[in-house]
Amino acid sequence: MKPIGIFDSGIGGLTVARAVSEAIPGHPIVYFGDTAHLPYGEKSATLIQRYSVRIARELLDLGCGSLVVACNSASSNALDAIRSAAGPGIPVIDVVTPAVNWVQSKYERGAIGVIGTRATIASGWYQQLLHEAGFTAQAKATPLLASAIEEGFQHGRVSSALIEAYLGEGAFDSVQAIILGCTHYPLIADQISAQLPSHVELIDSANVVAQALRSAIQEQLVDGAEIPSSTSQRFLVSDLTDSFARGAQRFYASPITLQERKLSSLLD
Amino acid sequence: MKPIGIFDSGIGGLTVARAVSEAIPGHPIVYFGDTAHLPYGEKSATLIQRYSVRIARELLDLGCGSLVVACNSASSNALDAIRSAAGPGIPVIDVVTPAVNWVQSKYERGAIGVIGTRATIASGWYQQLLHEAGFTAQAKATPLLASAIEEGFQHGRVSSALIEAYLGEGAFDSVQAIILGCTHYPLIADQISAQLPSHVELIDSANVVAQALRSAIQEQLVDGAEIPSSTSQRFLVSDLTDSFARGAQRFYASPITLQERKLSSLLD
Repeated sequence: MKPIGIFDSGIGGLTVARAVSEAIPGHPIVYFGDTAHLPYGEKSATLIQRYSVRIARELLDLGCGSLVVACNSASSNALDAIRSAAGPGIPVIDVVTPAVNWVQSKYERGAIGVIGTRATIASGWYQQLLHEAGFTAQAKATPLLASAIEEGFQHGRVSSALIEAYLGEGAFDSVQAIILGCTHYPLIADQISAQLPSHVELIDSANVVAQALRSAIQEQLVDGAEIPSSTSQRFLVSDLTDSFARGAQRFYASPITLQERKLSSLLD
Repeated sequence: MKPIGIFDSGIGGLTVARAVSEAIPGHPIVYFGDTAHLPYGEKSATLIQRYSVRIARELLDLGCGSLVVACNSASSNALDAIRSAAGPGIPVIDVVTPAVNWVQSKYERGAIGVIGTRATIASGWYQQLLHEAGFTAQAKATPLLASAIEEGFQHGRVSSALIEAYLGEGAFDSVQAIILGCTHYPLIADQISAQLPSHVELIDSANVVAQALRSAIQEQLVDGAEIPSSTSQRFLVSDLTDSFARGAQRFYASPITLQERKLSSLLD
């Protein structure tokens, strides 16, 4: 059984890896955080495509049989490039489409909010998919939020000042739900909720994506085939610092060990 | 007259470029912001060295006759590598040494504070130079401060919450002065001051570096040679987004145009 390759610009995608490992227990996983190039969210679409394709190829070289693009910035800006590089035999799951499908399954019509990095929102991808599904999209870039969470600013004055700056003044009062369009945001979901009217639901894409992946993999399994119980998980990053090693545990919600794997051809 | 090459991981080094252009008016300048790889401050020393050497070579290829490492993270982690790549004929000015020299010229002994990125503080370079100059160093990484300023959070609740989190509770009450060890910090110097006892002086390295550079260049000039009045300034970045284009003006304090120059060999 080939491992599922999960990648993100950094360690935030570990929230998705965790959800995947819970939704499909025992399935081997290779996680790759491109910490040498993070954050993707501030970079141009062209550059995000080049970095993403590089990591996708790395995961396929490592024997992965399917790919999960856990990074919203990469899902929004580089999905076609990744699919094209992976070829037709490799299922590629992004984090945007499952979230929009979930909205469609639960809501009839009306306004849906999305918050994410600058690159995610600028791509217009969430907005386009929501529009095609019959919704009005209200999108806002909240660029500093992910870095603040990565730095451990949760449940204090820094994160509350940021949330108020981005989401305050009734900016999202008319939406039914807000998609948390960045892997980091679930860690401060309760603080975000506190800033919004109580009827606004928050949608955490990590769980939605894990379910989508489970369906995709189950479709591929031969009748009667079972996922082996022995698990093999590798967690790789392109640049390893103490800070990432410490942060990994917070995002994965249990102790894991990151290994560095240099992208040599990028660093000549 | 060969241009001065000034580089930084992003657009923050434009504060140094501005100081240089005011200290040595009319001298041609090529600025390079490695926005494809920013922020350096979260990356490992090895990676900062590779990225920095790549940009230094780019500036020499563009005909620069001297280099200013405007980035504190690069100055602290990659100066030897840059000097070695540039070779003996190219003066390389960093932002750390001139700041420490300035401290030494003004203070006798005692405690000096330094704030900077994680990579700057972790390198221990400021601390070592201050120690060798007879001072006690009190260093603290303030990682989110630069991103917050880059995002335009100045003089409001977000920056004040951050400054309090990093510098509050008397952390720096016993120092005589604090070196602002990141090109972004001068933009919120007044808010930082407000958090500290009134006797603590803030040292802005941009101006100190510009003076050091002027001396270095004047030593090299032949007697009677004059800097031509015609000016030529180029501002290059390795990845151009609207957000960087807009931010550039804020850091340079007057309108400038960024041009993208891809680092093709890094992106194969």
